[in-house]
Amino acid sequence: MSSSPATTSLVGRPLAEVDTPALCLDLDALEANIARMVAHTRRHGVAWRPHAKAHKCPQIALLEIKAGAIGITCAKLGEAEVFAAAGVRDILIANQIVGPLKMTRLRALRQIADPIVCVDSLEHVAELSRAFADAPEPLRVLVEINVGLNRAGTTAGAPVVDLARRIVGSRGLRLAGIMGYEGHLLNIPDAGEKLERIRDALAVLPESKALLEQAGIACEIVSAGGTGSYEITPICPGVTETQAGGLVLMDAYYKHRCGVSGFEHALLVLAGVVSRPAPDRAVIDAGRKCVHGDLHKPLVVGRDDIEVSRLTAEHGDLTLAQSARDLKIGDRLLLVPGYSDFTCVLHDEFVVIRKGVVEAVWPLAARGKLK
Amino acid sequence: MSSSPATTSLVGRPLAEVDTPALCLDLDALEANIARMVAHTRRHGVAWRPHAKAHKCPQIALLEIKAGAIGITCAKLGEAEVFAAAGVRDILIANQIVGPLKMTRLRALRQIADPIVCVDSLEHVAELSRAFADAPEPLRVLVEINVGLNRAGTTAGAPVVDLARRIVGSRGLRLAGIMGYEGHLLNIPDAGEKLERIRDALAVLPESKALLEQAGIACEIVSAGGTGSYEITPICPGVTETQAGGLVLMDAYYKHRCGVSGFEHALLVLAGVVSRPAPDRAVIDAGRKCVHGDLHKPLVVGRDDIEVSRLTAEHGDLTLAQSARDLKIGDRLLLVPGYSDFTCVLHDEFVVIRKGVVEAVWPLAARGKLK
Repeated sequence: MSSSPATTSLVGRPLAEVDTPALCLDLDALEANIARMVAHTRRHGVAWRPHAKAHKCPQIALLEIKAGAIGITCAKLGEAEVFAAAGVRDILIANQIVGPLKMTRLRALRQIADPIVCVDSLEHVAELSRAFADAPEPLRVLVEINVGLNRAGTTAGAPVVDLARRIVGSRGLRLAGIMGYEGHLLNIPDAGEKLERIRDALAVLPESKALLEQAGIACEIVSAGGTGSYEITPICPGVTETQAGGLVLMDAYYKHRCGVSGFEHALLVLAGVVSRPAPDRAVIDAGRKCVHGDLHKPLVVGRDDIEVSRLTAEHGDLTLAQSARDLKIGDRLLLVPGYSDFTCVLHDEFVVIRKGVVEAVWPLAARGKLK
Repeated sequence: MSSSPATTSLVGRPLAEVDTPALCLDLDALEANIARMVAHTRRHGVAWRPHAKAHKCPQIALLEIKAGAIGITCAKLGEAEVFAAAGVRDILIANQIVGPLKMTRLRALRQIADPIVCVDSLEHVAELSRAFADAPEPLRVLVEINVGLNRAGTTAGAPVVDLARRIVGSRGLRLAGIMGYEGHLLNIPDAGEKLERIRDALAVLPESKALLEQAGIACEIVSAGGTGSYEITPICPGVTETQAGGLVLMDAYYKHRCGVSGFEHALLVLAGVVSRPAPDRAVIDAGRKCVHGDLHKPLVVGRDDIEVSRLTAEHGDLTLAQSARDLKIGDRLLLVPGYSDFTCVLHDEFVVIRKGVVEAVWPLAARGKLK
């Protein structure tokens, strides 16, 4: 799990002794972000089922649940297997699970956890029911509804009722509710327009729920939301839970492109200066294979006079203002990643820091579990 | 190492039994690409030191060396450690190595391999010499020269001689030569202009070598090149070796943006259809965390009627022409990645295929070795 022999004996050491580059997690900031999100969702009377696709780390998922999350969301069956093995029971796999190999694994997962999977077609229902018809416990299923993202998801309204009816009538399955994801509306600059458009898009969820109830079908869960809409989803009518999860790590994209405020930058990349080719230029050992910078440039913590001006595969190029020109080879900088989700997948472990001292090293145990 | 239990017993099975998504390697194509590059470099009288930063796989490096490569290039000390442990001896780390922890590891690496590291400042020379002054064997050092990429690298000409003189006079170090990388010139559309500009940029290398020789300093290695310039670098005056490495895998970016022809698509992503939300739309289980599509869209092998129209983190969206509308949930497609380098880092293993049958599963053992 360790990305180098040097990181295995780091606990108790100061950050200054951590070699570069390293993916760091500020534990005070992480805990504050989790507490804030728990309070926020409680205030609005919705449950929190944070998406774990960014952090991919059982230790973080368990912290979230201990603080009040009802479970987690993840993207892949392979991720769910990792979280279940770590003791997480209530896991929404926000995806369609397809194929005989995965059916076998999903049945095994059901032995140790209570997963939920999404469907948007009768084929999904049929395959899942064949797999679970004789299972000791039923599998929970959500109907995914297209709320305008135009990715997966069935059309709202009557098709939802058709699918739900089939689920209710299928051996081995239990209809848990409905889900939509407003991922196309997360970076609308104007706050009023964003609120209005997300509320309009998600209105199909309570409408579909009402149709289900008219048909005599109970719909417990109405799940939606991402970090970019964490303030809005919980106040949309009928939503019972939000999946917003990336905000526990935060990044420059969420802050500066999605208008997410009130969360601290818990995820940081420690980088080292490896070259000083010109007075106004420096090169760090964190390039595109270490920190994501396409959706927003990484930011240098506490240094307005240093700009990450280019990322190539293996190098990060810095442009230095006059006041930063004393930067030396061997100096170290902390970066706020451009986007946390695509930064974490590049690493195998978090160096967990509290008040400048390494408190733990946590593997991203679900990284690479793409199946 | 395995990304799922299902992949560990795959050897001898047909591709149809490989679960999705999977990073696949067509071994016939890989071997043909390697043979072609060996023949190409021999024809032009230069050595081949293929960069391993894309494949990160000792088995591929050993195939390259067996076919005629003189060794490999890599980007990180941690990668070099993995390749050395697998038996690769001649390893260029095309980067500056900095800091006491890495000096200790570099000394250990020198016990089992003959690495080369790059320097572009006197500080690098001083630190390396302190580390190797009493080492049993000297460390080979290349002077990195800025050929216009404006990343690391010293200015050509007199500064190269100053640095080389310091290396020659430093205990524990041996000057191996010079290096430049024309990475800013790899996707110039016009072939004639590309040839001219790369030749002009790399002209500083033989000029610097001549200055070194005038100063009585031998300069054995003149290293340059990438996949996008694989035809040009070997015919530039004075170049002794090319680092072009990504071409053994190939991808859509190299072919359609860098004009690289004559190599087969050895790297493929096997993806499965998980949703058919509309007649002209399908969703596959390969999104941005599985296949890179920013520099060029992934292409669907043998299907001009299917376009990868969007990649989000966990989903790939396909647009289907009329003739592709019979695509079903559970169907499988092979994708040519947009860019191989940023695709491989997302995976833990290659499923190695020959004539449709799994011949091996090779871990990307150097993936995540960012330090």
